[in-house]
Amino acid sequence: MAYNLLKGKKGLIFGALNDKSIAWKVAERAHEEGAEIVLSNTAVAIRMGTVSELAEKCNSVVIPADATNVAELEHLISQTMMRFGGQLDFILHSIGMSPNVRKGRTYDDLDYDYLQKTLDISALSFHKVLQTSWKMDAIKRGGSVVALSYIAAQRTLYGYNDMADAKALLESIARSFGYIYGRERGVRINTISQSPTETTAGGGVMGFDALLDFSNRMSPLGNADAMDCADSCIMMFSDLSRKITMQNIFNDGGFSSMGMSNKAMAIYNRNLEECKDCK
Amino acid sequence: MAYNLLKGKKGLIFGALNDKSIAWKVAERAHEEGAEIVLSNTAVAIRMGTVSELAEKCNSVVIPADATNVAELEHLISQTMMRFGGQLDFILHSIGMSPNVRKGRTYDDLDYDYLQKTLDISALSFHKVLQTSWKMDAIKRGGSVVALSYIAAQRTLYGYNDMADAKALLESIARSFGYIYGRERGVRINTISQSPTETTAGGGVMGFDALLDFSNRMSPLGNADAMDCADSCIMMFSDLSRKITMQNIFNDGGFSSMGMSNKAMAIYNRNLEECKDCK
Amino acid sequence: MAYNLLKGKKGLIFGALNDKSIAWKVAERAHEEGAEIVLSNTAVAIRMGTVSELAEKCNSVVIPADATNVAELEHLISQTMMRFGGQLDFILHSIGMSPNVRKGRTYDDLDYDYLQKTLDISALSFHKVLQTSWKMDAIKRGGSVVALSYIAAQRTLYGYNDMADAKALLESIARSFGYIYGRERGVRINTISQSPTETTAGGGVMGFDALLDFSNRMSPLGNADAMDCADSCIMMFSDLSRKITMQNIFNDGGFSSMGMSNKAMAIYNRNLEECKDCK
Amino acid sequence: MAYNLLKGKKGLIFGALNDKSIAWKVAERAHEEGAEIVLSNTAVAIRMGTVSELAEKCNSVVIPADATNVAELEHLISQTMMRFGGQLDFILHSIGMSPNVRKGRTYDDLDYDYLQKTLDISALSFHKVLQTSWKMDAIKRGGSVVALSYIAAQRTLYGYNDMADAKALLESIARSFGYIYGRERGVRINTISQSPTETTAGGGVMGFDALLDFSNRMSPLGNADAMDCADSCIMMFSDLSRKITMQNIFNDGGFSSMGMSNKAMAIYNRNLEECKDCK
Repeated sequence: MAYNLLKGKKGLIFGALNDKSIAWKVAERAHEEGAEIVLSNTAVAIRMGTVSELAEKCNSVVIPADATNVAELEHLISQTMMRFGGQLDFILHSIGMSPNVRKGRTYDDLDYDYLQKTLDISALSFHKVLQTSWKMDAIKRGGSVVALSYIAAQRTLYGYNDMADAKALLESIARSFGYIYGRERGVRINTISQSPTETTAGGGVMGFDALLDFSNRMSPLGNADAMDCADSCIMMFSDLSRKITMQNIFNDGGFSSMGMSNKAMAIYNRNLEECKDCK
Repeated sequence: MAYNLLKGKKGLIFGALNDKSIAWKVAERAHEEGAEIVLSNTAVAIRMGTVSELAEKCNSVVIPADATNVAELEHLISQTMMRFGGQLDFILHSIGMSPNVRKGRTYDDLDYDYLQKTLDISALSFHKVLQTSWKMDAIKRGGSVVALSYIAAQRTLYGYNDMADAKALLESIARSFGYIYGRERGVRINTISQSPTETTAGGGVMGFDALLDFSNRMSPLGNADAMDCADSCIMMFSDLSRKITMQNIFNDGGFSSMGMSNKAMAIYNRNLEECKDCK
Repeated sequence: MAYNLLKGKKGLIFGALNDKSIAWKVAERAHEEGAEIVLSNTAVAIRMGTVSELAEKCNSVVIPADATNVAELEHLISQTMMRFGGQLDFILHSIGMSPNVRKGRTYDDLDYDYLQKTLDISALSFHKVLQTSWKMDAIKRGGSVVALSYIAAQRTLYGYNDMADAKALLESIARSFGYIYGRERGVRINTISQSPTETTAGGGVMGFDALLDFSNRMSPLGNADAMDCADSCIMMFSDLSRKITMQNIFNDGGFSSMGMSNKAMAIYNRNLEECKDCK
Repeated sequence: MAYNLLKGKKGLIFGALNDKSIAWKVAERAHEEGAEIVLSNTAVAIRMGTVSELAEKCNSVVIPADATNVAELEHLISQTMMRFGGQLDFILHSIGMSPNVRKGRTYDDLDYDYLQKTLDISALSFHKVLQTSWKMDAIKRGGSVVALSYIAAQRTLYGYNDMADAKALLESIARSFGYIYGRERGVRINTISQSPTETTAGGGVMGFDALLDFSNRMSPLGNADAMDCADSCIMMFSDLSRKITMQNIFNDGGFSSMGMSNKAMAIYNRNLEECKDCK
């Protein structure tokens, strides 16, 4: 169902890889809601994935850029503004990757070059997108920027590793730059803290299936999926949320406000009796 | 601008007094977005205010009810369901009042009968609305309930008195009942924590004008007004937020994420020099 | 091991019932640390429990008082000050009870008279203790007040019922009155959010054993027990924490900062396979 | 006043520069409380400051180490364990520096090499200290690690710049590693979020004096000073806090729980009238 919530708006969407990606759903929904969009990802991701299909579907283009590289961001934003004939209304940052997770380095045995890459790709890229846009005055008054986050920024989850620290940093950048963008340009910056989601990226985390099940049973409304997340993004890009900024919105079926649910406890209790000596 | 976000939806709105009320704006916006609504307030408030004008404008009715009285709530909900021919999609709770504030009793000299009234009117009424609706199975799967709150629930503001405690209680009720409503009925419950707003209710707080100014200069986007709040409510009633529950959404121009702003500091510093000995 | 941390200090301790009570351990430890104490509880609790043994052990007295009754609190504080020959240095509030929990009324079927009692006993009693002490100027500059809380104030736990709302209200009262006591009298007010603890009170909550196990496996250091809590209280009563106020200190082995632990997941996963269809 | 709280304990203290440093006060207090300590700082800081005086006073030694350099940390910890004849009981991390702040680069014009240094020095050094200690099994069961933080990790303060992001990252590292250290080794890791403090480091922040005054008037107990902070650290190193981990303890006179205070408002209001048109 479409509402024309983004009619006449123009946006840049980072991070669509394939049709499981949250960014993919956001692009589709933004297009349905009347927005004109530009897609971006790294050259490698564009080759590996199917984002050109998405571009076709959304009457859009894909402009490659490594979001950790300021020169490439400048080129991307300049190209995007040229295409749009002016400033942007919204940006989605859906970028994250941990070489430590990929290479199986646990949190007590991090490789520090990898850690720096985790932070650069998953968090500092957001500052670079914002600062480059700032210097090029690329975002319209009333514009809205969203980055995708996860509750690991607040609470430790077994196996999420250095991505937790990256998400904490990402949310801090949203606040820090949100203050300046709000004050000077009337632009708002928020993060959406999404349920664990079965994407190509999400799957990399250790014990992901069990986490997904636990999270689902802990959440009164169940896990939010990629489409639920896309609708939250639309809402945050629309004018309805025009005074919400520097916030982290939990789109997670209620998980973040739960201590223990009946449904999760039912599973937990089942084996507890037999398991008194489990470590 | 309207989007048909609530097309076909039916809602009950508590707390509209006059055209400065947030609930008034929510009603207008909900109507614009295609919802059918019923308005409610106490008999006294209906006499004092102008809510019947609103009802006319929104093609609605006003059904009096004291939200602290379960029997009156039962009557209200039963009448509302009869009018709608079935269940509700959304409810707004915008109710708050402190006899201690009204009578000038400071927080170190509270009257405990008044305190009980503050809590009953401003917080327990929310539980009563929810429990009565629960027992009457009045809210549709996918429905959404919002109560209006204030940051005093988290941080102490000079002069806000026992309303701070009431708001903390209100937000807790949203979480506690949100768990059950989410799990069993697929209904979400959230609070919106709104900037201080110049309504008839807001005006009662000590030093309100100064607070309004401070809050405005602290908030990168400035204070959110009643219309901004109404749009946040619409967003939370719409299907776009279908997996967001048990949350407190700050609709406050960024205030809640600020420690100190440049603009507020500019005022603060002005007299600091001359005021070294101020207590 | 004792350090003389409370040497020369005088304190009033509410809520010791028997030797499983947290307040009992706090009294013992305060005594060991050199404090002079007075114990209080309701007349009924004094009869049911064994607090007079504790009084003997700690060279103390028990003064009965219903902490929801201002007149009884005035009498208690006046007697206590007489015994001490002056003002108090610290107060412990360890009081909580829900008639709804006791009578098996679930959160979607609360009795509102019971709810009012839950709030009055578990939260408003704290305001009454503070306001009565305030009016009698009973707490010394540099004094410290602690109330015991639980994470249900922030996150919903199945079965904790209206006690969650009471704890949220309690923590709000600590902040609201903490501001005034801090500013005017240099007295600090904090809450300690304790792990679930096997006390006579704790045992009343539905599914308590399973919760205890889950909580223990989620907490990197395991659950904090009553003695751990007592030491936290000592620390908060001592001069070491003299600038900490209006805070909620989690004494919980890390539970509050966990999203999912390896140990809890090990139990959870065991039967997950066979349980795909569990509701 | 000393209590023998750290009798027989051995600790490593990073970050003492001169007698205004918080780490300096912590070292003095730890020594008074019966601890044996080793001091560390960079070679440059040791030359610039007066830490050798402190070493003499505390019957300690200074071992130079750049905490961003793993090899130097290995050497430091190995030397420290040799001196102590075994494992450590506590570590203080009081390290922070932003080249962007020093060079006057504002947050919308960050130099990314500087930003990486800010994060490496102020946050990743904490991970490096913890991981190096982990691999060398350098911390005793029951041990306690504290890093100093600031509320900018949660809320944006004008002028605090990229140090805000560094503190958010620091606090996340405390949680992430706190989980593993707690579970496997019974070691706790916390941060103390301290009032703005007049140290050599603190002075570098833009508009520091005004912030200090505002913070002081907002805090019911006034700002916590370096000695207040030292006592909080002692408390967290002592066995009294043995079950507190992965927490951020606000030692700030109540600032973090305040929205607006009477005293700050008095200053603010003074010029508000004349200043209606101030931007």
